[in-house]
Amino acid sequence: MLSLRQLEESDYPGIITVLDAWWDERHMTDMLPRLFFKHFNRTGFVIETGGTLVAFLIGFISQTRPSHAYIHFMGVHPEHRRSGLGTRLHKAFFDRVKPRGCDTVHLVTSPQNKKSIAFHSRIGYRIEEGDRTVEGVPVHSGYDGPGEDRVLFTKEI
Amino acid sequence: MLSLRQLEESDYPGIITVLDAWWDERHMTDMLPRLFFKHFNRTGFVIETGGTLVAFLIGFISQTRPSHAYIHFMGVHPEHRRSGLGTRLHKAFFDRVKPRGCDTVHLVTSPQNKKSIAFHSRIGYRIEEGDRTVEGVPVHSGYDGPGEDRVLFTKEI
Repeated sequence: MLSLRQLEESDYPGIITVLDAWWDERHMTDMLPRLFFKHFNRTGFVIETGGTLVAFLIGFISQTRPSHAYIHFMGVHPEHRRSGLGTRLHKAFFDRVKPRGCDTVHLVTSPQNKKSIAFHSRIGYRIEEGDRTVEGVPVHSGYDGPGEDRVLFTKEI
Repeated sequence: MLSLRQLEESDYPGIITVLDAWWDERHMTDMLPRLFFKHFNRTGFVIETGGTLVAFLIGFISQTRPSHAYIHFMGVHPEHRRSGLGTRLHKAFFDRVKPRGCDTVHLVTSPQNKKSIAFHSRIGYRIEEGDRTVEGVPVHSGYDGPGEDRVLFTKEI
């Protein structure tokens, strides 16, 4: 039985300790400080089965442009992938931000994260134009700092 | 002549390239993705002199508890420290979030960042109780993940 609920700050220690493992041992933890769990948990969700957290998503509503929302992190336990959990989390996020006036969702991913690029393309995100193309994918060079290229995704909801 | 203005997304490349140097070569850039400049620039400020950016602050209003605000990063060029720029940036932030209903500001810093601890104590932040004390300073062990202890500051505005 898989159940979805709102993210709580108390989910932080459990998630931060599995984060790098779920990302193929890339060092991700610096990018997910506790502030996202403390100050944006209303737009965060987790999926559990038998008390074990197997997927999470965390985002927020843009304070520059309140009709836009942004998904900062979405992770699924490697053994629970391709079973619809990511889709379910995105739907929960859309259902939360749409009544609050959001019509557009943004997110970014790394060019090397092929699974992420394939997943977001599959669920209806389009890739924004970049300044160059890497293996057919438009990329924004140095988007998150020197050497930190990103693929930008957008979806109208 | 030092002038203060609202942060813009276009400030990102300039700030991200000096970040580690301003933090004594600690690796900070992963903690400051572009999203803060893109989605929270209304609660961000920079100080420039002669076209050169010498200080910045970026924060946001909590979406979990909208009467609370949070300062994520504040940096001052090493040659411009102890001249009141940090105080001026905090004041600009308070003046921005107070009319929007905020009465409390939070921020966290690393126990090893003595300058940051001294500065925030001096301008009226109090340190929250921790689970242990390091060199007289209350610390929250593993607050931002394993090994990532933090000192928590709070100020009523």
